Amino acid sequence: MGQRSDARQKMVQAAKQLIRERGYNATAFSDVLKLSGAPRGSVYFHFPGGKTELAIEAAGAHAHEQVELIDHAAEQADSATRLIEVYLDLGREGMVASGYTRGCGIAPLVTEGATRDSADMAEATRQSFAEMTDRLAYHFVAFGIERSAACTLANAVIAGVEGAMVTARAQQSTAPYDAVQAALTVYAAAVSPKSGGRQAG
Amino acid sequence: MGQRSDARQKMVQAAKQLIRERGYNATAFSDVLKLSGAPRGSVYFHFPGGKTELAIEAAGAHAHEQVELIDHAAEQADSATRLIEVYLDLGREGMVASGYTRGCGIAPLVTEGATRDSADMAEATRQSFAEMTDRLAYHFVAFGIERSAACTLANAVIAGVEGAMVTARAQQSTAPYDAVQAALTVYAAAVSPKSGGRQAG
Repeated sequence: MGQRSDARQKMVQAAKQLIRERGYNATAFSDVLKLSGAPRGSVYFHFPGGKTELAIEAAGAHAHEQVELIDHAAEQADSATRLIEVYLDLGREGMVASGYTRGCGIAPLVTEGATRDSADMAEATRQSFAEMTDRLAYHFVAFGIERSAACTLANAVIAGVEGAMVTARAQQSTAPYDAVQAALTVYAAAVSPKSGGRQAG
Repeated sequence: MGQRSDARQKMVQAAKQLIRERGYNATAFSDVLKLSGAPRGSVYFHFPGGKTELAIEAAGAHAHEQVELIDHAAEQADSATRLIEVYLDLGREGMVASGYTRGCGIAPLVTEGATRDSADMAEATRQSFAEMTDRLAYHFVAFGIERSAACTLANAVIAGVEGAMVTARAQQSTAPYDAVQAALTVYAAAVSPKSGGRQAG
């Protein structure tokens, strides 16, 4: 059981990595097997729903990883503004470390039309992005921001990070991260309570 | 010559539409021919560089269209803040009109790894995004923003729009556009000259 879970988990992680680098359609089962070291026969044993099921798991794993990064950033922050600064720093560092080769593990399922062909995949991508925005909004509320404003700020952060991942890769530059970070921290300070929590500027 | 240009142009527009809906790898030449009504033999006559050349032209056409939208927004605006409001309104309207099925015509080339396999495509996507950010920055400077701040603001706008396109499609909601618009207009007002030009709030 433990071994089965381990092989399955390795395939999910391999799929996530490949989808982040080359998208959904260009990620073949054979590549996932090669990268994870799993035997060919294990594909439909672990993923009876085929590539759709594997991609849904990979999107979920990506969201889970981002929620952990968000929690990690929140632990180091004393305000929504500072949380955003740290989260964008982590995103920028990851992009540079990958040599500008790694994007989002969820977005390709949307942009390649896979969510149009599968209701399960559509629901999985919606849910994966919602987990990230909900977690951000939870922390923003804890930092004293009113709930509706916290949700708006969270949506802006996730959209900003998603966009920076694309344009930073195209430009081979951190400038989009710097710009998104500047815009979001000014906005976060504007919707943060005036007393308590660090303000921008 | 005119007829040749017309058929070529129709294929570029068809490729752009399909790439926006289903990405790069899922856009086959046969689909482009079907949508544009061009004869099969015309592919390598018009695009001796094959699908790479066609996608590069489609990305350029997408950027050109966005530059026109940016200019259109600037004509209706009396400040950087208002330009951003109008540009985001246009993006939101386009997304809703497409039934949340249409994304960026450039981003899939990046996220599907096509830019890693072709130096020409890498340069084309970099150049296409640069045309959009340069045009925004040009208008922001005309509205009195200092050049370096104008470039940062332009990078934030393009990243925000790129991200909103992905998360709005996943959520089937305009919330990401609303959030990005709110964040960017507050930031634009913060970096705009205090006299002249409309300020947010």
